[in-house]
Amino acid sequence: MKIVQTFAEARELAGGRVGFVPTMGYLHEGHISLVDAARRESDTVTVSIFVNPLQFAPSEDLASYPRDLDRDVALVEAAGADIVFAPPLAEMYPSDPLTRVTVSDVTETMEGAIRPGHFDGVATVVAKLFAGIAPDAAYFGRKDAQQLVTVRRMTADLSFPIHIVGSPIVRESDGLALSSRNTYLNRDERIAARSLSTGMFAVAAAVRGGERSGTVLEQIAAGPVDAEPGIDLDYATLADQESAATIDALDRPAFLAVAARVGRTRLLDNVHIDPDGGDWVPDEGIRLDTTSILYREA
Amino acid sequence: MKIVQTFAEARELAGGRVGFVPTMGYLHEGHISLVDAARRESDTVTVSIFVNPLQFAPSEDLASYPRDLDRDVALVEAAGADIVFAPPLAEMYPSDPLTRVTVSDVTETMEGAIRPGHFDGVATVVAKLFAGIAPDAAYFGRKDAQQLVTVRRMTADLSFPIHIVGSPIVRESDGLALSSRNTYLNRDERIAARSLSTGMFAVAAAVRGGERSGTVLEQIAAGPVDAEPGIDLDYATLADQESAATIDALDRPAFLAVAARVGRTRLLDNVHIDPDGGDWVPDEGIRLDTTSILYREA
Repeated sequence: MKIVQTFAEARELAGGRVGFVPTMGYLHEGHISLVDAARRESDTVTVSIFVNPLQFAPSEDLASYPRDLDRDVALVEAAGADIVFAPPLAEMYPSDPLTRVTVSDVTETMEGAIRPGHFDGVATVVAKLFAGIAPDAAYFGRKDAQQLVTVRRMTADLSFPIHIVGSPIVRESDGLALSSRNTYLNRDERIAARSLSTGMFAVAAAVRGGERSGTVLEQIAAGPVDAEPGIDLDYATLADQESAATIDALDRPAFLAVAARVGRTRLLDNVHIDPDGGDWVPDEGIRLDTTSILYREA
Repeated sequence: MKIVQTFAEARELAGGRVGFVPTMGYLHEGHISLVDAARRESDTVTVSIFVNPLQFAPSEDLASYPRDLDRDVALVEAAGADIVFAPPLAEMYPSDPLTRVTVSDVTETMEGAIRPGHFDGVATVVAKLFAGIAPDAAYFGRKDAQQLVTVRRMTADLSFPIHIVGSPIVRESDGLALSSRNTYLNRDERIAARSLSTGMFAVAAAVRGGERSGTVLEQIAAGPVDAEPGIDLDYATLADQESAATIDALDRPAFLAVAARVGRTRLLDNVHIDPDGGDWVPDEGIRLDTTSILYREA
């Protein structure tokens, strides 16, 4: 595995079909599942590690966002990646970037409404990584559902010849969706956070039981969170997988997304729901057997 | 030469080093000079022909913009292009495009101030063409000076591995800078339009004579236009080649740009001024010996 700091090196070292996993580092099994998926479908697997300032608001956790490049490099090497692209800020932004990539409509609901400018920062850095790495496929977690919608739309609108793959959420054994930000949680917060996934599994069960009402599914998602004193729900929303628009009924590929605050930490979870034959199938994600590597030495 | 309507075909037919010439069609010797430059430096020369709606304001001349694909195809074939990418609107915009690429600062002066949104449309379509064609180099005329600044900045900011080449203005034998919009001019307007290039040649002479003041060079540029009753000057501005910011003195690579209205037609001209050794060298462009192909059958 090679560790490079420039786009030029990342392109030169790549050959054949290139699978690309963009990350902000501090990796967990969710990221590793993306590397695994890329590995199965690619000749070269390139992983980028870059904490992108453009997608953080001034009030957000850019400075404290967890970073450990040595740990990340060991993890992606073990997972079989070929190239780690870990650019210094000066490679990504040699001068103040004047160019922004914005995606309207799909960024107006949910996270887009709560974090103004966030998806502009995401779309801009992903477009830049796509332009500079020139992969054939790129792998994103379903955990950031609206990000996936935004990236798919940006990729299509700008005609990048890149196949976008969305992979299932990976969860702690008790259900909590993996997130680098989980490392912010203390013991009490960690317990309160579990209510998010409890709601998600209840949504999945209701969908399997035939429930199709957006309002009812949203209530089911919110229930366990509302019942838990240590966590505040921002939203529980049934949304269209293509447009991220709120929908009233499960009548197209959708996701039920929740966001909540636990102390100073914001957490997301969701259940994607896809048609299969004449039925609707919820994606509850993958549960680990043991505690995730977020809480262990690499 | 192959004529294709999809990005996928344009990429599949290309091999080796790809030189790309993006155009809005209704080609003239200015475009042909770009194809010539690409031909000298490329294994595959791809020319796109697409009148991009995103860069026209509702009040502008999208509907009347001159179009003649058969004529254009004959011209680029004669010039030795390999691929013409002439997408239908549905290939470029299969659904309402939600993604915009914007470049701040460099688009605030001159054309950016007069045509709000114009450079967003340019940056968006050029980013899309770059993503979809994936060329090694792209060729633009110096005639659209601020467009060249915008494209260079977008390309760098988004890390497209594409070399941007700016080629000299090609002029009618009397000096008028070639533009597809010149075909809008009637006989009187055509005579009035000549004052723009008269001013440009005077600027070039003054620079060679040692003039370095922005104000004086702007006055020299404006003089012949102000003296001509049939033409109204929008601006005469000395600007930085990198930032498109107005500058007071010729102390860095610059261009003196003018814009004017003749009847309902807007026309642009400029002189790029580059350092060469210890001297400043104006680029007056290339004059044709005869009337351009704009006024002839292909």
